[in-house]
Amino acid sequence: MKVEFINPFVSATLDVFRVMLSCELSREPLIVKREHTPMHEVSGLIGLSGTCRGMVVVSVGRETAIRAAEIMLSSRPDGLNADVMDAIGEITNMIAGAAKAQLEQYSLSVGLPTVITGKCQTITFPSGAYPIGIPFESEIGPVCVQVGLVEVSEPAAPSAANGSTSAESN
Amino acid sequence: MKVEFINPFVSATLDVFRVMLSCELSREPLIVKREHTPMHEVSGLIGLSGTCRGMVVVSVGRETAIRAAEIMLSSRPDGLNADVMDAIGEITNMIAGAAKAQLEQYSLSVGLPTVITGKCQTITFPSGAYPIGIPFESEIGPVCVQVGLVEVSEPAAPSAANGSTSAESN
Repeated sequence: MKVEFINPFVSATLDVFRVMLSCELSREPLIVKREHTPMHEVSGLIGLSGTCRGMVVVSVGRETAIRAAEIMLSSRPDGLNADVMDAIGEITNMIAGAAKAQLEQYSLSVGLPTVITGKCQTITFPSGAYPIGIPFESEIGPVCVQVGLVEVSEPAAPSAANGSTSAESN
Repeated sequence: MKVEFINPFVSATLDVFRVMLSCELSREPLIVKREHTPMHEVSGLIGLSGTCRGMVVVSVGRETAIRAAEIMLSSRPDGLNADVMDAIGEITNMIAGAAKAQLEQYSLSVGLPTVITGKCQTITFPSGAYPIGIPFESEIGPVCVQVGLVEVSEPAAPSAANGSTSAESN
């Protein structure tokens, strides 16, 4: 995955946690590992497509998910209920939206966030995606953002990409 | 979710299993349930965006996943390895692609498939998505396709940004 894809997701995550949860994250070293990357118990996923396509996964532990929903709702949810799922889905959506705004040249559009829960989950991105895991620590617990993005050879829409264009004569 | 969204995913799933795995699926009654829908152990997920946005999840048991990869590769994978993940990711990608072709009026583009494994996984779609679960039975085991799609009022606009970031036009 291109290095330029990483920073928008880092700053988006920092911003969303700061603004939505009044929570400062501290970044840990990146994880680059294609197969069977472990996830925390609650993960928000959202698809991205445009002149590159991909998936963003925001993964937190059970207690962090409940605490995040508690901060957003100003009342503590009763376990991993629908409110917690909506909170994690919304955080995922906002991180994807904020990163997309910084990756304008790829004309990204954002899918629908879904939230998966389960112990001992692992995620695998397709061959060629080389996903990056961006772990963070915070006072409400660890957060891991995983991003897999690949450039699309035939863009669906006229490409505004200024960087990596293939030699097309027109 | 609109009824017209369902049939493209049903026929796409039937076609992909028939063509790729020589496997005839028989359809079971639809499941309409927003919260905590259980999934099988191996699930391929892919995002869709366009004038509607959503997520497609193709979920199968461990043995079904291994058997599907075995049919595609003509050799039996040694457990839930990278080959199995790639096979399930590719099946998910093909189902989304075939359904997209039938939903041309929504100008869908398809994200990147990712595969999640884990026991006792559940999935939650956001409020307003009203996902549909389409279960199938087959000789290689049960398959469940879940689809959540919502129409977007303004296709390109970032729905997130609650003041944290705004797309700067320059």
